[in-house]
Amino acid sequence: MFGELEQSTAPTNRRPHIVIVGAGFGGLSAAKALAKTDADVTLIDRRNHHLFQPLLYQVATAALAPNQIASPIRAIVRQQKNISVILDEVFNVDRDARQVVMRDRALDYDYLILATGARHAYFGNDHWERHAPGLKALEDANGIREKILLAFERAELTPAGPKRDCALTFVIIGGGPTGVELAGAVAELSKRALACDFRHTRCTDPKVILIEAGPRLLPSFSPMISDYVKKSLEKRGVEVRLGAAVTDCSDRQVTVGGDVVNADTVIWAAGVRASPAAQWLGASMDRAGRASVKADLSIEGAPDIFVIGDTANAIGVDGLPIPGLAPAAKQQGAYAGRVIKAKLDGAPPPGPFRYLDFGSLATIGKNAAVVEYRGIRLTGLIAWLFWSIIHVYFLIGFRNRIVVTLDWLWSYVTLERGARLITESVSSHQGRAPATARLAPVAAE
Amino acid sequence: MFGELEQSTAPTNRRPHIVIVGAGFGGLSAAKALAKTDADVTLIDRRNHHLFQPLLYQVATAALAPNQIASPIRAIVRQQKNISVILDEVFNVDRDARQVVMRDRALDYDYLILATGARHAYFGNDHWERHAPGLKALEDANGIREKILLAFERAELTPAGPKRDCALTFVIIGGGPTGVELAGAVAELSKRALACDFRHTRCTDPKVILIEAGPRLLPSFSPMISDYVKKSLEKRGVEVRLGAAVTDCSDRQVTVGGDVVNADTVIWAAGVRASPAAQWLGASMDRAGRASVKADLSIEGAPDIFVIGDTANAIGVDGLPIPGLAPAAKQQGAYAGRVIKAKLDGAPPPGPFRYLDFGSLATIGKNAAVVEYRGIRLTGLIAWLFWSIIHVYFLIGFRNRIVVTLDWLWSYVTLERGARLITESVSSHQGRAPATARLAPVAAE
Repeated sequence: MFGELEQSTAPTNRRPHIVIVGAGFGGLSAAKALAKTDADVTLIDRRNHHLFQPLLYQVATAALAPNQIASPIRAIVRQQKNISVILDEVFNVDRDARQVVMRDRALDYDYLILATGARHAYFGNDHWERHAPGLKALEDANGIREKILLAFERAELTPAGPKRDCALTFVIIGGGPTGVELAGAVAELSKRALACDFRHTRCTDPKVILIEAGPRLLPSFSPMISDYVKKSLEKRGVEVRLGAAVTDCSDRQVTVGGDVVNADTVIWAAGVRASPAAQWLGASMDRAGRASVKADLSIEGAPDIFVIGDTANAIGVDGLPIPGLAPAAKQQGAYAGRVIKAKLDGAPPPGPFRYLDFGSLATIGKNAAVVEYRGIRLTGLIAWLFWSIIHVYFLIGFRNRIVVTLDWLWSYVTLERGARLITESVSSHQGRAPATARLAPVAAE
Repeated sequence: MFGELEQSTAPTNRRPHIVIVGAGFGGLSAAKALAKTDADVTLIDRRNHHLFQPLLYQVATAALAPNQIASPIRAIVRQQKNISVILDEVFNVDRDARQVVMRDRALDYDYLILATGARHAYFGNDHWERHAPGLKALEDANGIREKILLAFERAELTPAGPKRDCALTFVIIGGGPTGVELAGAVAELSKRALACDFRHTRCTDPKVILIEAGPRLLPSFSPMISDYVKKSLEKRGVEVRLGAAVTDCSDRQVTVGGDVVNADTVIWAAGVRASPAAQWLGASMDRAGRASVKADLSIEGAPDIFVIGDTANAIGVDGLPIPGLAPAAKQQGAYAGRVIKAKLDGAPPPGPFRYLDFGSLATIGKNAAVVEYRGIRLTGLIAWLFWSIIHVYFLIGFRNRIVVTLDWLWSYVTLERGARLITESVSSHQGRAPATARLAPVAAE
């Protein structure tokens, strides 16, 4: 039994060893494609769970609990006998030694698939992150949720005035799918789910502002959809500012053009940057740091190294860039697996990677979403139902599907939010809570 | 609308103001009892959620997610019109000024109910806490869960030997209900739910040790029950050490008598100490720091201040001390509410507090629990079913009841654990992961 590890991690003179870095949509799909090969697979991730990122904004807005959109990686690949999982962080790739380098160890590979994803990016203004956190991991979502909930607690104890307005102002920067979904969800949370639980906050008090530098929301959709989304958000009380570039984020302040918006809670959804996989490889990359890959998703000069998902800059057979979406990453993972399998089997390689576009969708809130698929455009309730079904279906794990469906049904009927936890004690946030005139001063002792 | 807060927190010349500190079982039950009074109630807690503490060990062992046993306090009291909730931490009580003192503010009271609970205690060895954390709040449970899961990840990468044994040894100190429930749950998690997800860890590898200083487990139950519990735990692979006093806890080491046990994971369940409510009041207290209360749960010389639950030392009408259990805290809260209501109404006070003993129960694991009620003793499956029904029934919130029931049914059938999240990135834990000989050394660059 113990001999197995020794062998599987030292594959020389034995079965080929395939290392996959990252257990997101791309990495997991590659692992699955390699299930039936006569090779050992090692899947490395710095977290113990796969995250269903498309629903992360629901954790940030207290609609779902973290474990409802995350599954332990080991549990997902349990049935796959040729795979080992390692919880560790990769820092480099040594192409000469053919090794993946982690902090305290390195691992030989015969084939390497890098699926390390992306983080939010601040276009050279990394110091903005402190004031305007982004949303990519569960920790981000937990932090944003606690920030929103604490803002309400603070507002409840603050007399009317600029301080209170600032606590109840929520700014979302970026009008792409994440920004739109966050704006809709924050509006729903603040104006409906929370307002009735506070004695001194009316549902009209919270202010949600969505800022987009470009001329319209959801630029990857058609203008008609952008228009619908803007109106739909405004109907839900969101203030949408278009053509408004953010020039500074500082403590509780966002500068938009010449205008300064005061807000305790600012969320960044304006851009992503790839993980440093291209740098590890010394591969050529685009402005977003994504590694340029060939038609078979391998990198120039290294037919045994594949880069997939958000960290790859892949051009489809139609000459268009492949979008950074979950379905694209999944298809790329499956394809990279097929290429390696063909090499192992000595079979002819499959043709170039072909992206199958399943359309785009985004949700705004209860009963409102948009779907676009080859000229077919859906909006409103039908799009929302479609969006809900798709997302539940793709949530990994039968169990999560049931629980999330129940949760959504429950929230739909009651407008309640089930995951409104602030896990830290208030003491750690105490510095922020202003003393108020309404309450008697602390007695001198 | 805004005037209301001004009035409700400045009750002079107006309706009487009742302040409740702590939204545990006692505090919430007091708040409920005061719903129909012509008084304003303010409920202060340093967390935004009520915690169903009896199931906390299930969060620590990844069987339930945090939000399944926690409900936002504001949501619980939403329907009660005369109540305001404040998220803040109380540091003192000024009896002369009749004020509750928080960090940045103070609040006048006409009646005060302190229900601030207890924390785990180390009997003068507070430095043990670092090595042997206790289990009282959600943060504790999250920390212990991550510790257990990371120990397994470490073991998977460590060759057979003392380091690996240390990673897979789990010590629970204290043989009361919490210790017994933890030991049973850790054994189930480590030997059944987790083992099958690791390629190099067999279900016989993990070692769970339960240490109790006294001569038997669950000393508050009858000896026959203690015996059953010990055998039942042993059947599940737990090593039970009785009459074994812990004399030191240091880094990955527990000293028991002359013996040293090496274990990466040590959990403290050996004692509690009351919150400092008695000190705030300058009231007399017992060795565990609990305030001595009179027959009506008020403190000597202050008929308008009540102390209830784990932070009170109350003697029942039968002369026996009232145990630190959830039902006792609930009954005390309801009683204190009735006493205040009678005073407000000018009605005669109710008789002294009478504790209604509903018996004791504890669970060991799947199909095994113990119930004792006035000489009636149940063990095994029937006790376990009884335990499950009781706990689901008392979980606050209809919604949580459904989800927890589903989760339990699911785990019962599959033995899976749904809440196996490590939310921090592995980098923060990296220091602990040992480099292993099996893996190639990091290439020099």
